Amino acid sequence: MRCEVLAIGTELLLGQIVDTNSAWIGEKLAEFGVDSYEHRAVGDNQVRIVAAITELLGRADALIICGGLGPTQDDLTRDAIAEYMGVSLMRHDELAEQIAAMFRARVRDMPQNNLRQADVPDGGAAIPNPIGTAPGLRCEHDGKVIYAVPGVPYEMQKMIVEQVLPDLLARSGRRSAIVSRSLKTWGASESGLAEMVAHRVDALEAAGNPTIAFLARGIEGLVVRITAKGPTEAAARELVAAEEREIRAILGDLVFGVDDETMEHAVLSRLRARGWTLAAAESVTGGLISARIVNVAGASDVFKGSIVSYATEVKRDLLDVFAESVVSEAAAGEMASAARRLLQADVGIAVTGVAGPTEQDGHAVGTVCFGIALPGGIVEAVSTRLPGDRERIRQFATISLLNLLRQRLDALA
Amino acid sequence: MRCEVLAIGTELLLGQIVDTNSAWIGEKLAEFGVDSYEHRAVGDNQVRIVAAITELLGRADALIICGGLGPTQDDLTRDAIAEYMGVSLMRHDELAEQIAAMFRARVRDMPQNNLRQADVPDGGAAIPNPIGTAPGLRCEHDGKVIYAVPGVPYEMQKMIVEQVLPDLLARSGRRSAIVSRSLKTWGASESGLAEMVAHRVDALEAAGNPTIAFLARGIEGLVVRITAKGPTEAAARELVAAEEREIRAILGDLVFGVDDETMEHAVLSRLRARGWTLAAAESVTGGLISARIVNVAGASDVFKGSIVSYATEVKRDLLDVFAESVVSEAAAGEMASAARRLLQADVGIAVTGVAGPTEQDGHAVGTVCFGIALPGGIVEAVSTRLPGDRERIRQFATISLLNLLRQRLDALA
Repeated sequence: MRCEVLAIGTELLLGQIVDTNSAWIGEKLAEFGVDSYEHRAVGDNQVRIVAAITELLGRADALIICGGLGPTQDDLTRDAIAEYMGVSLMRHDELAEQIAAMFRARVRDMPQNNLRQADVPDGGAAIPNPIGTAPGLRCEHDGKVIYAVPGVPYEMQKMIVEQVLPDLLARSGRRSAIVSRSLKTWGASESGLAEMVAHRVDALEAAGNPTIAFLARGIEGLVVRITAKGPTEAAARELVAAEEREIRAILGDLVFGVDDETMEHAVLSRLRARGWTLAAAESVTGGLISARIVNVAGASDVFKGSIVSYATEVKRDLLDVFAESVVSEAAAGEMASAARRLLQADVGIAVTGVAGPTEQDGHAVGTVCFGIALPGGIVEAVSTRLPGDRERIRQFATISLLNLLRQRLDALA
Repeated sequence: MRCEVLAIGTELLLGQIVDTNSAWIGEKLAEFGVDSYEHRAVGDNQVRIVAAITELLGRADALIICGGLGPTQDDLTRDAIAEYMGVSLMRHDELAEQIAAMFRARVRDMPQNNLRQADVPDGGAAIPNPIGTAPGLRCEHDGKVIYAVPGVPYEMQKMIVEQVLPDLLARSGRRSAIVSRSLKTWGASESGLAEMVAHRVDALEAAGNPTIAFLARGIEGLVVRITAKGPTEAAARELVAAEEREIRAILGDLVFGVDDETMEHAVLSRLRARGWTLAAAESVTGGLISARIVNVAGASDVFKGSIVSYATEVKRDLLDVFAESVVSEAAAGEMASAARRLLQADVGIAVTGVAGPTEQDGHAVGTVCFGIALPGGIVEAVSTRLPGDRERIRQFATISLLNLLRQRLDALA
């Protein structure tokens, strides 16, 4: 089964929008074992959309078209599919009524143009869109299939997961269920991780089920994804669970979370389990640690706040840093203690360092010191040297400190 | 002149990387008046790369290929171009020597594979890459031209701007110079802005030079881009400058910056001009204001720091907030004053509010209050209601407060 992806929109070609949808769809197709050899973007031009459909379906079994389903004259996906199929657009009365009802519910007049969204190429079917106005389309032609989905990411994602993928897998004649689970790791290189897990990859290779894939996620670490097929979802899930136990036994505390869990989830859940609160003092990261933590809904029961002590005098006067150099392990420890004390938290974390562009007080760019203050007056600090430019050093320092705290909490009795 | 964009890399199809390069190249091509009708991504497969080149150059005058120039066996752009041209790869001794010298300078052994980067299709030319190891390629064939550039964004961008675009424009036979300038605005809707500038757009339409385009930048506002052609760069620049005066007279203080200037640049430069320092107290934004500011190199001469007072008791005990509700204009004003006092700054800014997912103390999600404390004990506060989800409210609150401060500073005598 081979399925290509075609994104529609002149704004994509002009660079006014970056196409993130195609990558998202590509990842989903790969996860479910569907090959995709080409992603393409064309503008709002019917001739060129039809030409792209013709070329892509000349080589593939299926095509997902993303975008161009809106109500305006520029939205040409419906028309282009009908032209490709050699059929007319048929207005579906029940779709028209749904669209009209939605406008009535919002007490707004409906521009007549909006009824275009009730048009379906003759012989095709509409895919319901419970969270948006544009229905999707599913059109078969010459033994191949076209799915058209909206360009709005969350509408598109829901439609792909709930309607397109199941249909695509059913078409592929596959009777098996597929389940996958991502183990998120931090702290190992891609080659290091691959070496640790190599004998599992070898052991699984003959049967080909489950399979293991490595996905790089930049500063967020590396993902080990386990995917299994089975006659039922429960059977596939059991295969994944068994392999997860094997991989976790090898990787130990390199694994910080599963699937959508982030490093800040990992830290907050561990603190919450102990009933501990958290505060931070940040210099080089400039508020990024705090911003990451508060992005988790419900962080407020754990996180008290942060003091961004960018200027040296703030470290001296507000945080009571006495260490000779403000870029030192001693200063990081004092900052962590001050965060804990001033913000009345059980745990304080701190980071100080040099993000560049130039060195500071004799410390090279990339020098970073981390401090952790725990209940009972325990204060620890370490330092390291991070690579990259200003932004990367800052991002790297943020996740490094969160990971240090995670590992430190796990090491407590 | 029509130039298409082809991105190379299986990781793009698998969704492990989002292709931001094609959008960036598309925007540059549009800015310089070069049409682009199609963007395409294919995997690391020579047959499919050659097929894509053949199809794309069958319809266009030029092609930019991005990626696949690395040293590994998976990097097939060089081989594919040579196959398309029907020529062999020739090793260029001077390129090989440059690569070897770079490894010697880093005191590292050079894997023999790296010499692949010194291979150029016979008849083509290497494009120097002063900031990376992979040279680009410029290959003419059948009256058309292929440019191959690295996939690393900053190496690609430098090569496109300095080498590819000038060559492409020269090939197009265009004798004129093109200059453009982006006026960055914040606070007006796209339709509102278009209406304000409509008579200028109409006035320019007949001559078609200069032209005006509107580009949406999400929470960063809207860009009005003025582009002019002229017999020389100086002449084009003069046309742009004249139109900029017209547009600025209409838009007034909606314009916060030019080209790459961000809102935080605008704020920092105004404070620096007065010799004033800045501090913040953030609740709902959780450190984002601070993180944006410190991302500007050189922020440290103006920015003292921030207190992220996420918990109510931090607002009460550390920031001395006495207002009955911590989500109120009174609280925002007290927080701004406290930031100014505790962090020893000339100007304090503050924000408090409700990002959701649920309402807080009777305040609806999206309620946000801003405070500004100026030298001489002037304290001002305003409140508003922002749309969107948690993350969007936080981002919107951040730039709204920075914009308020910018306008407040401009209004000072």
